[in-house]
Amino acid sequence: MTVPARIKIKKLLTEQASNQPTLVKGWVRTKRGNKNVNFIALNDGSTINNIQIVADPAVISEDTLKKITTGAAISVIGKVVESAGSGQAVEVVAEQIEVLGTADPEKYPLQPKKHSMEFMREIAHLRMRSNTFGAVFRVRHALSFAVHQFFHEKGFYNLHTPIITGSDAEGAGETFHVTNFDLKKIPLTEEGEVDYKKDFFGSETNLTVSGQLEGELGAMALGEIYTFGPTFRAENSNTTRHLAEFWMIEPEMAFYELQDNIQLAEDLLKYVVKYAITNCQDDLQFLSARAEEEEKNKPQTERQEMSLLERLQFILDNDFERITYTEAIEILKNSKPNKKKKFNYIIEDWGADLQSEHERYLVEKHFKKPVVIYNYPKEIKAFYMRQNEDDKTVAAMDILFPGIGEIVGGSQREERLEKLQARMGEMHIPEEDLWWYLDTRKFGTAPHSGFGLGFERLMLFVTGMGNIRDVIPFPRTPDNAEF
Amino acid sequence: MTVPARIKIKKLLTEQASNQPTLVKGWVRTKRGNKNVNFIALNDGSTINNIQIVADPAVISEDTLKKITTGAAISVIGKVVESAGSGQAVEVVAEQIEVLGTADPEKYPLQPKKHSMEFMREIAHLRMRSNTFGAVFRVRHALSFAVHQFFHEKGFYNLHTPIITGSDAEGAGETFHVTNFDLKKIPLTEEGEVDYKKDFFGSETNLTVSGQLEGELGAMALGEIYTFGPTFRAENSNTTRHLAEFWMIEPEMAFYELQDNIQLAEDLLKYVVKYAITNCQDDLQFLSARAEEEEKNKPQTERQEMSLLERLQFILDNDFERITYTEAIEILKNSKPNKKKKFNYIIEDWGADLQSEHERYLVEKHFKKPVVIYNYPKEIKAFYMRQNEDDKTVAAMDILFPGIGEIVGGSQREERLEKLQARMGEMHIPEEDLWWYLDTRKFGTAPHSGFGLGFERLMLFVTGMGNIRDVIPFPRTPDNAEF
Repeated sequence: MTVPARIKIKKLLTEQASNQPTLVKGWVRTKRGNKNVNFIALNDGSTINNIQIVADPAVISEDTLKKITTGAAISVIGKVVESAGSGQAVEVVAEQIEVLGTADPEKYPLQPKKHSMEFMREIAHLRMRSNTFGAVFRVRHALSFAVHQFFHEKGFYNLHTPIITGSDAEGAGETFHVTNFDLKKIPLTEEGEVDYKKDFFGSETNLTVSGQLEGELGAMALGEIYTFGPTFRAENSNTTRHLAEFWMIEPEMAFYELQDNIQLAEDLLKYVVKYAITNCQDDLQFLSARAEEEEKNKPQTERQEMSLLERLQFILDNDFERITYTEAIEILKNSKPNKKKKFNYIIEDWGADLQSEHERYLVEKHFKKPVVIYNYPKEIKAFYMRQNEDDKTVAAMDILFPGIGEIVGGSQREERLEKLQARMGEMHIPEEDLWWYLDTRKFGTAPHSGFGLGFERLMLFVTGMGNIRDVIPFPRTPDNAEF
Repeated sequence: MTVPARIKIKKLLTEQASNQPTLVKGWVRTKRGNKNVNFIALNDGSTINNIQIVADPAVISEDTLKKITTGAAISVIGKVVESAGSGQAVEVVAEQIEVLGTADPEKYPLQPKKHSMEFMREIAHLRMRSNTFGAVFRVRHALSFAVHQFFHEKGFYNLHTPIITGSDAEGAGETFHVTNFDLKKIPLTEEGEVDYKKDFFGSETNLTVSGQLEGELGAMALGEIYTFGPTFRAENSNTTRHLAEFWMIEPEMAFYELQDNIQLAEDLLKYVVKYAITNCQDDLQFLSARAEEEEKNKPQTERQEMSLLERLQFILDNDFERITYTEAIEILKNSKPNKKKKFNYIIEDWGADLQSEHERYLVEKHFKKPVVIYNYPKEIKAFYMRQNEDDKTVAAMDILFPGIGEIVGGSQREERLEKLQARMGEMHIPEEDLWWYLDTRKFGTAPHSGFGLGFERLMLFVTGMGNIRDVIPFPRTPDNAEF
């Protein structure tokens, strides 16, 4: 018998029963049966759905069948027939099975039972083989591809901004050092400072916290660019919302003003959510059902009103609410939780920084939809944001999502050299560090805007997962860089 | 007059003369003219081509015209008319011009004349505004998108492998340290070693040199994955072929053997080259002409026989030559330069590592097309490559491109636990560091393969640029992390 070409299970499940020989490979999810027949649920990662393999002990040797346990890799040649009762249209009646790799049931950690998320993180090298994490990482691919496609269709250029950098875009300071020094023998200058001239790059270098500043350079040349790369924060936060290494999408656009910027962000979010709904139906249905199960563990008052799939559809069906910071403060000041002092941080005056409890109130209680807040007080925002006429606010914007909080942060950038220099002076940012950034304001400056979208925040929203460590393959957090 | 919506120049140049008002924004490339009329070549980065703006001093004020110099950003409202002689079908007769940002001709570095590549690297924040670098980075986007599309269409999943890692896939050791320590106060243990327990991750961490090992974990769960991310080498090489930070594409596939792996790499390379030829015609024509100009500076014997566009087409039209390492050695041993001792490294025995002079001979002189060499001696290859039956070679493969050398390196991975452990033992690679990698061989192991494609090597080939620092926006090299 000639060996047919291997077919992936995703494709096989869309085919008709043909009685033709087929070759399918994958990992055993479960095996059940009796003396007369065995049913093997086989998965190859191409889809959340398994193909059922029917193995007759009269055809497949006992020795082979014994090795077919959860987690084993097998290769099956058999006929595609109509399925009697597997929930799928077709199944495969095995004629030959080769066991490629066994999985000792005493040792294989991923047995078919419920595992805690904490345990799954400890076996992050294997968890992608489970239904939940298979679905999560297929959705991650789909969202990633949708991001590239969205920008490509609009004529944006993907710009690879540097990962190792001397600049600190946010001025936050919580960066990781990158060095080639032997840490036991750090060379010092005569003044007792680290002698960075002797390091690989001849200067102090860090891991980037944002590609924005370099992205702006690209926008002021290529018009519309976006970055999609890793960014880093050495923040000692052990929360369900923070990672030390995460992926950001940062578009920067020449000739965009603040409202253009907001519109682009809203269009992007709707595009990628729609893409996921259209292309990841099976995975999202599974994740939606999973999230509903999880909800049952929560007290009634904390449960989401809508299912995951309903929440995704809701984003598509509703315009985002756009309000100024000043309007947001008014709403919050007059809100019940503020008057009844239920907020941890009571809103008293204009100028207060919004905490996540305030953002959640606006999004989940007051407007019950995504909210865009713009024109923030300049004191609570970064130096590069464009100063408004009122001399109090800057053309910043944040997009808040239900259950997530801030998913996008952006602004129109300050394109006026004198205003930018003045603000940098007030905030003690040395001009010599950013001479190249200032150059774009000296030569052919123009209005421009951009924003950052935290990819893992988007993942949390689309997958309904509760912890950011569960939406990136190998999370980096304080005290953990395993795998 | 209502202001029309802004149109990008790439789109405008495909439109018919309509006599309709249009709004176009961009940066001035050149202005020429006389008392009666001014011609402004305007570019907005969307295309290498400029739109010609015709400005009549009777309509546009002298003050405005004076500010319109090379590098200035302007906004133009005018009518789209048939072009008399600009080389384009249409031009814009200006009715209003707003100068958004000037560019002092005394100070703006990017004046319209020939600049050295070295100088352009010093102004990497502005060089994207030039024809050459605009073309290079639009092509970079196109290739990047083509990579994603190729894998997406084949059902691969994009996997974001970690950037900060404790593992060193190649065992090369030339990694950058990542630390949150104050470099002036490195904590030491009682034994005088660096006390990594006190560092952010609680262990020694580096920047990844490859996503392969984690990629394999993904392939053994999701079937077919690819990474596309930054990788790092702290190699003190000041050459036209090395970067400290570069982007790699690393697919890993379950159930692929060596020849499947080679076929996938060949298909990928042809796909992305074809994509560039189809979608970047204007940019590639410019770069091809530019490369031919550069060739004229070389001695006759070193000049390429084909133009850039011909070289790209050649890749599509020819199957890659596939030869074993043993065959390669035979060819080299019997070659003229070996017999006449023209090689710096004379090939005498089987087992010799191939130098770039040998690779160039095979590709450029002997076969005159891309060459795939496979089944290398195990001694010169990495621990994870699958050992062949002959006990001497491993199922490795390199793809060599004319003018570039190695563009792809890959292998079938060793899926047999005992063989892998034995090889790790021989090469002194501690098993405890890679327990998770070994687990994939313990549980459901299966044949699998993968390769790495250096994105900047691909960029060099497709753009015809001569230095790898000129195909990445902000190159990181010894003593340079500017911007």
